[in-house]
Amino acid sequence: MLDVLLSHIHNKVDITEDQKKQLQSFFTFKKLKKKQYLLQEGDICKCLSFVSRGLLKSYFSDEKGNEHINMFAFEGWWISDFNSFIHQEKAVLNIDAVEETEILMITLQDYDKMLSEIPVMDRYFRILYQNSLVTKDYRLIVSNSYTAEEKYLQLAQKSPEMIKRVPHNLIASYLGLAPETISRIRKKISLNNT
Amino acid sequence: MLDVLLSHIHNKVDITEDQKKQLQSFFTFKKLKKKQYLLQEGDICKCLSFVSRGLLKSYFSDEKGNEHINMFAFEGWWISDFNSFIHQEKAVLNIDAVEETEILMITLQDYDKMLSEIPVMDRYFRILYQNSLVTKDYRLIVSNSYTAEEKYLQLAQKSPEMIKRVPHNLIASYLGLAPETISRIRKKISLNNT
Repeated sequence: MLDVLLSHIHNKVDITEDQKKQLQSFFTFKKLKKKQYLLQEGDICKCLSFVSRGLLKSYFSDEKGNEHINMFAFEGWWISDFNSFIHQEKAVLNIDAVEETEILMITLQDYDKMLSEIPVMDRYFRILYQNSLVTKDYRLIVSNSYTAEEKYLQLAQKSPEMIKRVPHNLIASYLGLAPETISRIRKKISLNNT
Repeated sequence: MLDVLLSHIHNKVDITEDQKKQLQSFFTFKKLKKKQYLLQEGDICKCLSFVSRGLLKSYFSDEKGNEHINMFAFEGWWISDFNSFIHQEKAVLNIDAVEETEILMITLQDYDKMLSEIPVMDRYFRILYQNSLVTKDYRLIVSNSYTAEEKYLQLAQKSPEMIKRVPHNLIASYLGLAPETISRIRKKISLNNT
């Protein structure tokens, strides 16, 4: 399991064998069954988690109980309620497993310790967060400016794996659309392709 | 002007006097008049910019010519079309000055050089991007899940300076609302407060 993480790090920065060994001590392994919670809103998000296998989703529940998906984390992705993790405040997001999932978890104390003791990890996370900001900027633009159909088509083009792997009601929630809207768009696309 | 940047860096990480001197060589200074462009969509975003005085906005224009504001950058903020800057691809965002503004600019080549030569800057940007992700996560939740009134009230609570300093039509664009909706909400709030 740690191999997936170490190879992910090694793809972005140069780490020595000693640093790899040192890194191991900061992480704990956890298995989640499908639909099992990793975090519930109102709790403190104690760990930042790296998905070594499977798929997690984070989402926000509004007052009417509707779920709004914040992100999906496939293999090689990190996930948390970031505000809750960094500031150790109550989480507004829930995180649970869309598929059976394996994760590597690090506490805030160990995250800080790791960044102090292995400075190249500052570089790793700087690159990671940089990429994440690029993605989030793009998503915010799509969310504020595109029609329902444009949103779906953009996602299908940018993240075909997501469309294949994630149930359609969750895709709808991720795009801030009603499931019926997604069905209508998919029907229209399939008619246009026949 | 560089003092604002150096003090911003020093507030987040430890840098030596030598590193401060070294940093200076990477930045160029630029003054923008009110409404002057820093970046236009379709161009390559050649620099990451630090606002030492004033206020910039970045926005996306949709096909109907409507502006959707991505972010405001006050003093002490960094701004760019991040995807365009990092990948040197065509920008989808425009950036211009809401007020007379002074910035410090760094090219991608110098940004990479600075991060290699002064590793503590990896730490600085890691912290900066970390904070930015927390803010963007929160904004995405608000954008997808809140009513118009809730969006405005949340912004007023979280960023009172923005409400005071930024024209209302720009606040409306930032929140993805019609200017009339903002006027209606402001009227309602002011009636409730009398």
